[in-house]
Amino acid sequence: MTKPAALWQNIYEILRAEIAQGAWRAGARLPTEAGLAQRFDVNRHTVRRALQALADDGLVQARRGAGVFVRPGPVPYRIGTRTRFRQNLLSAGRTPSRKVLHLGRQAASVPEAQALGVSPGAPLHVLESISFADELPISLARSCFCATRFPEMGAALRDQGSVTAALAHVGVGDYTRRSTRLTGHNADPVQARHLQIKTGDALILSESINIDPMGQPVEFGRSYFVGARVELVLDGSETAPFVI
Amino acid sequence: MTKPAALWQNIYEILRAEIAQGAWRAGARLPTEAGLAQRFDVNRHTVRRALQALADDGLVQARRGAGVFVRPGPVPYRIGTRTRFRQNLLSAGRTPSRKVLHLGRQAASVPEAQALGVSPGAPLHVLESISFADELPISLARSCFCATRFPEMGAALRDQGSVTAALAHVGVGDYTRRSTRLTGHNADPVQARHLQIKTGDALILSESINIDPMGQPVEFGRSYFVGARVELVLDGSETAPFVI
Repeated sequence: MTKPAALWQNIYEILRAEIAQGAWRAGARLPTEAGLAQRFDVNRHTVRRALQALADDGLVQARRGAGVFVRPGPVPYRIGTRTRFRQNLLSAGRTPSRKVLHLGRQAASVPEAQALGVSPGAPLHVLESISFADELPISLARSCFCATRFPEMGAALRDQGSVTAALAHVGVGDYTRRSTRLTGHNADPVQARHLQIKTGDALILSESINIDPMGQPVEFGRSYFVGARVELVLDGSETAPFVI
Repeated sequence: MTKPAALWQNIYEILRAEIAQGAWRAGARLPTEAGLAQRFDVNRHTVRRALQALADDGLVQARRGAGVFVRPGPVPYRIGTRTRFRQNLLSAGRTPSRKVLHLGRQAASVPEAQALGVSPGAPLHVLESISFADELPISLARSCFCATRFPEMGAALRDQGSVTAALAHVGVGDYTRRSTRLTGHNADPVQARHLQIKTGDALILSESINIDPMGQPVEFGRSYFVGARVELVLDGSETAPFVI
């Protein structure tokens, strides 16, 4: 015998299905707690629990004083020769932001040294940050830059709003993606806390190397994307067949 | 207080770390159960449990009568304009194989119809299969083809060893990838059983459309890759910096 689902779970499932089927579109405001309580003939506590479960899934977002809104679906995030975090989010109609977790100097590990074409132990500027789309965390990123070639990069990363702006500041006016490798992982507790997801949730790790116009590596990046919040669109992909 | 790890877990962790550090290279044979039992001063049952945990992780493989061997790392799997399962595995030095789970006709769902440029409800040939690299499951795939345009595709998929061969058989001598979208998911119990992983393990879902030389969609595919067993390498990526 399967244990019957709790009342709030039934309401959660119904609303979830309605959102999936487009009954509530991205950006729409759900009825008030009182309205939902009346519709489902339950008390507001039960409604609140169902809404919390939807929020945990990233499907809705409560805005203080304004109500509960349906979040847009996964962010389409283009990966190709010109991959830019801010541009990608702006083209998707999302507001990009970043929270710096750590910015400092570290000695290059063997894979970092290989990726950047420096010696193991060489000094690097390392930036660790959380990336947000409309205030929802979508990735946890670690970027490394050669500190010998770019002594001012630490300050530039601190003062500029993006990696692209910081690189421009130290003289790299343009850069392109040389390689990208993707693997799947389960979030550990620290990643889960930073990304506001559950431990074990699926992440896609992107390991990438960006090069300057001369072909020299300038950045080695490792980004863990929240699997359910981002849709990686590979360069050359047309968007038409998947437009909602 | 944390519960102390069982004896087999300690041995599992030590061997796991040794494999990760390259002490045992891909293809190497581990010492015999008797040898490991002696090294760790435990009985063979304890060794066997540690080896089973390593096998569950896909790190080692027992070959009857021959011993326990270290498996190679994640399969590098190239995704680009010409993505071919068999070719990809052969270039990675792996032996590709497929197990058909289901082959039949179905009515096109809305997303399938959009992807293939047919009407919802149109008849499709649907192939569901598990893909293996050296007998380790790496993906669970569902491929759809328009049954009106390719009436013989069902028989071709049944008789030919690959999608590429089946398409060639029905007159599509070449095809290219028009679009690829990747999202991350946690394996449900059915996926976990087919892929020989644990429920909740990270999967990367690839949704792709292949087109013929005239630009007509011929295949809509949805493949769940085991996150830890495959490294998706995006077209244009050089392999040199990551060679082990």
